[in-house]
Amino acid sequence: MASAEGVVEALRERGLTVATAESLTGGLVCARLTAVPGASVVVVGGVVAYANEAKERIAGVDHAVLAEHGPVAAETAAAMAQGVRELLGAGISLATTGVAGPTEQDGHPPGTVHVAAAAPDGTDVRSFTGGECLRGDRAAVRERTVSVALEMLLSAALRASPK
Amino acid sequence: MASAEGVVEALRERGLTVATAESLTGGLVCARLTAVPGASVVVVGGVVAYANEAKERIAGVDHAVLAEHGPVAAETAAAMAQGVRELLGAGISLATTGVAGPTEQDGHPPGTVHVAAAAPDGTDVRSFTGGECLRGDRAAVRERTVSVALEMLLSAALRASPK
Repeated sequence: MASAEGVVEALRERGLTVATAESLTGGLVCARLTAVPGASVVVVGGVVAYANEAKERIAGVDHAVLAEHGPVAAETAAAMAQGVRELLGAGISLATTGVAGPTEQDGHPPGTVHVAAAAPDGTDVRSFTGGECLRGDRAAVRERTVSVALEMLLSAALRASPK
Repeated sequence: MASAEGVVEALRERGLTVATAESLTGGLVCARLTAVPGASVVVVGGVVAYANEAKERIAGVDHAVLAEHGPVAAETAAAMAQGVRELLGAGISLATTGVAGPTEQDGHPPGTVHVAAAAPDGTDVRSFTGGECLRGDRAAVRERTVSVALEMLLSAALRASPK
């Protein structure tokens, strides 16, 4: 499992910067990265786009994407990652959207999660839906989403610029 | 001590929304608020303005404020709070800036922290500098900053709209 320390180290070694756009994790991914001493060399910043309006206004998500797919969708996660990467001029970026629970949202059960990583070579999305939903209560779903996010950031860093 | 649950409840009861602009806490304040079930009713979103450039680009801080006072200053904390409140159209807002450590930054020792809360009636700033610096290692300074932030949010909520 990727640790925040491992991600920061991999980015630092490669001279890469990172930005985040978080919905259901509410800032937890960025908080975890910035807990690492020296993180300021790689973490530019991020946005927490919790309300839909915030996804458009600060994460640069097209109104049309939200109107067509809704906030809990792979397309929206990808748009958030691409939006914040451009907004903050970061090398790679990470976005999370989904349902932490305890109640469902727009027909999506708790544990429905989409995580996107955008890098110079493109955008990857991992989706957890239906039988693949992330398990556990609100805290567990958020923590599992952070784990997926750190893994995807590490992969994107390795892929973007092999050491 | 104010809890995230207490802050969310106080905001909810008063129909107030909140937005955050975080530097040294890196998303921790927003993550703590959004950990509370039902937080989506009150939390609009936030920005993590870790790099200076991000403070201008996504927290709406005037270049002149940063140029004159630097990133670790009461004036900058106030500008971040006012900037994100306007950006996200929130009722009240909260901003943190300072030095988590382990090394000093621009001559400010670790534990130098400024926290601002902006509400319709004005902006409050609490500064911890010199002999009043927050104590402890990087994690402790960040946690103490979160505690101050939650207390100030609760005060701002009570002041903004008495129940």
